[in-house]
Amino acid sequence: MDQQQLRLWRKQIQQELDRTMDFWLRHSHDQEYGGFFTCLARDGAVYEEVKYVWLQGRQVWTYCRLYRTLPRFCRPEILNAAITGGEFLIRHARISADSQKCAFVLTRDGKAMKVQRTVFSECFYVMAMDELWRATGQRKYKEEAVKMMDEIIRWVRQDPSELGRPALPGAVPTNAMAVPMMLLCLVQQLEEADEVMTVKYSEVGSWAVQQIVQHVQRKGKAVLENVSEDGNELPGSLGRHQNPGHAIEAGWFLLCYAVKHQDPELSKVAIQNFMVQPFQTGWDQEHGGLFSFLDVDGHCPTQLEWNMKMWWPHTEALIAFLMAYFEKRDAKLLQQFEKVFEFVFSKFTDPEHGEWFGYLSQEGKVALNIKGGPFKGCFHVPRCLYMCELILDKLLAEKV
Amino acid sequence: MDQQQLRLWRKQIQQELDRTMDFWLRHSHDQEYGGFFTCLARDGAVYEEVKYVWLQGRQVWTYCRLYRTLPRFCRPEILNAAITGGEFLIRHARISADSQKCAFVLTRDGKAMKVQRTVFSECFYVMAMDELWRATGQRKYKEEAVKMMDEIIRWVRQDPSELGRPALPGAVPTNAMAVPMMLLCLVQQLEEADEVMTVKYSEVGSWAVQQIVQHVQRKGKAVLENVSEDGNELPGSLGRHQNPGHAIEAGWFLLCYAVKHQDPELSKVAIQNFMVQPFQTGWDQEHGGLFSFLDVDGHCPTQLEWNMKMWWPHTEALIAFLMAYFEKRDAKLLQQFEKVFEFVFSKFTDPEHGEWFGYLSQEGKVALNIKGGPFKGCFHVPRCLYMCELILDKLLAEKV
Repeated sequence: MDQQQLRLWRKQIQQELDRTMDFWLRHSHDQEYGGFFTCLARDGAVYEEVKYVWLQGRQVWTYCRLYRTLPRFCRPEILNAAITGGEFLIRHARISADSQKCAFVLTRDGKAMKVQRTVFSECFYVMAMDELWRATGQRKYKEEAVKMMDEIIRWVRQDPSELGRPALPGAVPTNAMAVPMMLLCLVQQLEEADEVMTVKYSEVGSWAVQQIVQHVQRKGKAVLENVSEDGNELPGSLGRHQNPGHAIEAGWFLLCYAVKHQDPELSKVAIQNFMVQPFQTGWDQEHGGLFSFLDVDGHCPTQLEWNMKMWWPHTEALIAFLMAYFEKRDAKLLQQFEKVFEFVFSKFTDPEHGEWFGYLSQEGKVALNIKGGPFKGCFHVPRCLYMCELILDKLLAEKV
Repeated sequence: MDQQQLRLWRKQIQQELDRTMDFWLRHSHDQEYGGFFTCLARDGAVYEEVKYVWLQGRQVWTYCRLYRTLPRFCRPEILNAAITGGEFLIRHARISADSQKCAFVLTRDGKAMKVQRTVFSECFYVMAMDELWRATGQRKYKEEAVKMMDEIIRWVRQDPSELGRPALPGAVPTNAMAVPMMLLCLVQQLEEADEVMTVKYSEVGSWAVQQIVQHVQRKGKAVLENVSEDGNELPGSLGRHQNPGHAIEAGWFLLCYAVKHQDPELSKVAIQNFMVQPFQTGWDQEHGGLFSFLDVDGHCPTQLEWNMKMWWPHTEALIAFLMAYFEKRDAKLLQQFEKVFEFVFSKFTDPEHGEWFGYLSQEGKVALNIKGGPFKGCFHVPRCLYMCELILDKLLAEKV
């Protein structure tokens, strides 16, 4: 391992994180209603004022996490913005007073515009509230987080009727990987340094892990996004659907769990099945970058963006391979990190305005020059950079 | 006007229509359950067996329309396939016995998998049933069409509650152009050579025309996909959204209406505002082809496929400019037809296997090589080719 290379990466990553946070701090705060504008053009100009609940929750999470873990971000303006975002969510995210169901998108002043029949708005609500509790010490945020978490668990494992999906005779009961991944992520969030929560959610955590691992199919040769509820392959496009970035993200979620629970078998599955294998099949040998979607049998996916290179799978790959290298010290894992790092820093970053472009064509050309939109906010890029910075710090500290 | 050029186009179009229909006749029929496979790979192989209701209805329409209007398609195998498709829809499309609401997608054997909270499955059901009545003479199909049509009108103009969209305080009441366009298309379908229907749906037709024309905004300089219910511009990305192919399609719907109702003012709007202007702003000067989406103020659209060149806007442009030329005899309109024709026949067609590619990158490279999928079936290509063939025949007949 080359110390100098690590220091260079460390420096570039810190600089990139600072530039990214500067972008959001400067352009995204709604001083009038609280919360954040997330539809920002390349230069940070607001091109749309509506507020996506996923992205409100994620930005609160990011601000609090950086505030409480990296000293240079422990600044009142950051905490205060997070609090106004959290309060905006508490006031407006729920679509009615007698339900925990949250909207997908709100008007600038907080009126519900659309609702998704899924649990994800609510999941990012939990992440926001738990971090806000940790950053402020205010108990009410923790209570918000736990109340919402318990409802999500009930919807997922007992009774989804409140989500509003009609029961249809041809609907295939599906274990979609996003759901247990999200639950595992929330369990890991809630149980950090908290014995009570660790006990409370321990069974949910191990259930989620087992649900995720069911997605390893084809005798270990592929991760499939959708499997049957008993862990078998589903027919058709749905069953053959692959999302390499998602598999890799699941990989580092599982690796965290394996390390904490000292489970070397799971650690191996996390690295081999969820990182190395999906990276191998998901990386575009011709133009570089990870494909967004693939079909395990090589059919053309029906998603129009299948061959686009999106920012977030690359952030997940950076975290995953650096974390895996930290745990295993296998130089091949660091080479994969380097491969992704070079692609990212030559294609996605924007030194002129900060934050990353989100959507490149297969050839690596910027296809949408927005920095934020309905699904891209202040989350994947800073989470990746902050986690990589911490891991690099640990590696560098060892060697001094 | 160059007779020889017209004859050449006529020949290429007939050949292309034959090749297209041969593709669907050969690969898409489900001999076991009736109806059609529409998820077909480049060579026609079925890669997914589920049945999208839009595409079932559209294929029945196409088969019947060709059967009854072009002698070379007046073949029993075509009518019989259409009948099995229509009967499949009658048996399976509705999600319950006490409602006209139809599914969006069915299992191969007809069980509802998903429902959209819109009226479009039902609209293509009407098109299928009306054509099936015209092709077979069987009254029950006409009754199916009218019963469904009246329910659609009730949902759109009186009470949408059965569609299942929750009423939310921040939801913006919107006149989305697709809805009146679809209704105008259905009125024109139902009233063909039918006095009773012409009287019955006359008011709906003129209402639809007036709703469509409201989408001309910015002092005539732009067609916007979504306007307020009183015909004003809406804020944000939704209000700025443009879909050039959709505007051009609306153009030929309006031109048909204007010709039938001898309305020269509407005819002018149809050609100038809905065809010429959207074509000007929607055509990619660098790589050719029509953009899928644009933002009227030049912001980057948030739809990932905004810069892709899709097959269907180009089919609409071929119909629109040839029809407009037929009505106005303005050589500039024929030049636009030629421009689109050349792009289409060099980029979308596939002489090896038939049918067109559906999705090209901005640069014109095939991005998805499927011939059919969740939104592409046996409809836009044959409708375009058949309509162009008829118009060219009329032009050529004049000159003999």
